[in-house]
Amino acid sequence: MTQLAAPPWSPIGWMPDHTIRLLDQTLLPNEERYLTISTVNQMAEAIRLLRVRGAPLIGISAAMGATLAARPRGDSADGALKNVLRASDDLQATRPTAVNLAWALERVRRRARAAVAAGEDLHAALVTEATAIWDEDRAMCELIGEAGLHLVPDGATVLTHCNAGALATGGIGTALAPIYRAHASGRKVNVVADETRPLLQGSRLTAWELARAGIPTTVITDGMVASRLRRGDIACVIVGADRIANNGDVANKIGTYTVALAARSHGVPFYVAAPRSTFDPATPDGAAIPIEERLPDEVRSSGGGVNAVRVEVWNPAFDVTPAELIAGYITDAGLLTRDTLGSLRS
Amino acid sequence: MTQLAAPPWSPIGWMPDHTIRLLDQTLLPNEERYLTISTVNQMAEAIRLLRVRGAPLIGISAAMGATLAARPRGDSADGALKNVLRASDDLQATRPTAVNLAWALERVRRRARAAVAAGEDLHAALVTEATAIWDEDRAMCELIGEAGLHLVPDGATVLTHCNAGALATGGIGTALAPIYRAHASGRKVNVVADETRPLLQGSRLTAWELARAGIPTTVITDGMVASRLRRGDIACVIVGADRIANNGDVANKIGTYTVALAARSHGVPFYVAAPRSTFDPATPDGAAIPIEERLPDEVRSSGGGVNAVRVEVWNPAFDVTPAELIAGYITDAGLLTRDTLGSLRS
Repeated sequence: MTQLAAPPWSPIGWMPDHTIRLLDQTLLPNEERYLTISTVNQMAEAIRLLRVRGAPLIGISAAMGATLAARPRGDSADGALKNVLRASDDLQATRPTAVNLAWALERVRRRARAAVAAGEDLHAALVTEATAIWDEDRAMCELIGEAGLHLVPDGATVLTHCNAGALATGGIGTALAPIYRAHASGRKVNVVADETRPLLQGSRLTAWELARAGIPTTVITDGMVASRLRRGDIACVIVGADRIANNGDVANKIGTYTVALAARSHGVPFYVAAPRSTFDPATPDGAAIPIEERLPDEVRSSGGGVNAVRVEVWNPAFDVTPAELIAGYITDAGLLTRDTLGSLRS
Repeated sequence: MTQLAAPPWSPIGWMPDHTIRLLDQTLLPNEERYLTISTVNQMAEAIRLLRVRGAPLIGISAAMGATLAARPRGDSADGALKNVLRASDDLQATRPTAVNLAWALERVRRRARAAVAAGEDLHAALVTEATAIWDEDRAMCELIGEAGLHLVPDGATVLTHCNAGALATGGIGTALAPIYRAHASGRKVNVVADETRPLLQGSRLTAWELARAGIPTTVITDGMVASRLRRGDIACVIVGADRIANNGDVANKIGTYTVALAARSHGVPFYVAAPRSTFDPATPDGAAIPIEERLPDEVRSSGGGVNAVRVEVWNPAFDVTPAELIAGYITDAGLLTRDTLGSLRS
């Protein structure tokens, strides 16, 4: 019997009445508070405010959120369909960069139209569809963990950026999946998590979930990455992705590109872990990926304190790492390279 | 009549009774509070807690602080000398990396011994010596500004890391000196300041003093550096130095090396600005520079909030940028290269 790699908690879940239980990630690591989401607007706000985040989990959350527009209320089938389509549009408008969001909501729209056309119960059909998206994501995480397992040998130290773990997905994460799998198989694994300003997903979230799983983790600031890599004991860097363009360029949390350049300079292989749904063949390259700019206050302040006054701030949420810096793509279809990435198009 | 480049305020100053007025930099940018330092211990604590920081300013502060051990108290000349030498040792123990600290205190020790041997007033001699160190530093800043002025043409945007400005020196700074000089000569200059976690000297200090001087400044997080450089409009990177080894390797605030790698990847020239006193021919290379490790709480928390719980932290205060990444050294002896740096040895 193999030890379960999955952590014994979940950032999202159905309540018995099919409202949604959501871990408020903005309060981590100091407080583990769960919210009950019972309207589409609440879910849209939770996504917009990053109470739920991570490209795969945003897709799952949005699909679950869209079901709330179809809860039995005596609407006509057409009226309910209209509500669901409007809800899908509202949910899609919350974050522009992650392709999973659009992808999950497109599945919701298709399923909603088909259910109404077939005279099925719309709410039940959408709950089933959202649950399927979640289940598929969990399975994808396991496959990603398998595909990357050999990159995390016994005794390895892995550096990661932001959070692409259980808190970002429906399962054991993308970037952290090989680490969870290695740990579950009895290997000693260490993680270096850079803190990932401005929102500190590394120190707040990655460190929190790895500590909870008993995986030794060291937090560093983003600027320490090059120094840490120079020490020579980092086996590899593994990060997640918000969108992978057709040429292999990767949009991921701001700071990823800085890490990738430092990794190349030290000869440390840099891997991107992501499910197939993150690959977007319709986006030719990184330059075509829209980059969300967020409010300056995220940079101006930290932890309630104000750091910068009377000056401008630039606050892009993502950056683009060019394909030539990426040693491989750890996907649910196996470990791919820039040259074999095209196989995901089929 | 040329416009003064120097800002109309000072991070340190003598009070009429030769106690010392010190701007508490830990409270910036939210509060501009000045402390009165009247004992050596208070100065040592101020240096240790980074209330005063920046390699040149630490040297000046320590020299000024050592005079407090010689304030007229009816000690014998030998007793007063002993107090000054002990004070110098205590002050030197506060920070291990900056060479200016040891250098300034060595001047204090030499002057103290000579003054006592010559039967001079020890306190007056040391106040004169500390003031000379300060005046020389101010003049050095001006020379550094002159040496780097041509690197900051009209319309230029300069990226800098940490704070090597007026808040770090006795004058207009080292890294910021060419920027202040360019601004004073009527050129339009823009600065991108990365925030410099963990202690945020970029957003708290560099942005504060540049805003005060009317120089447009944009704050970014440390992880945004590579993305910002890719936009292609950064004329150069200029940073300060805590120690320059004999081979040209530079110890500077943690994160500098990460910036230097990103600059090289984008073909943006990376300059180090520092007075001659920062050059240490006795240190053969970067590997020989002791790197101070600071308390984990600086990384664990920010702005009063706690980010990381139950995990390890690595918190080196400095990193080493290898000489091959450095386009030039902007010094009070002119703009030098790795090959001409040896001229400082004389």
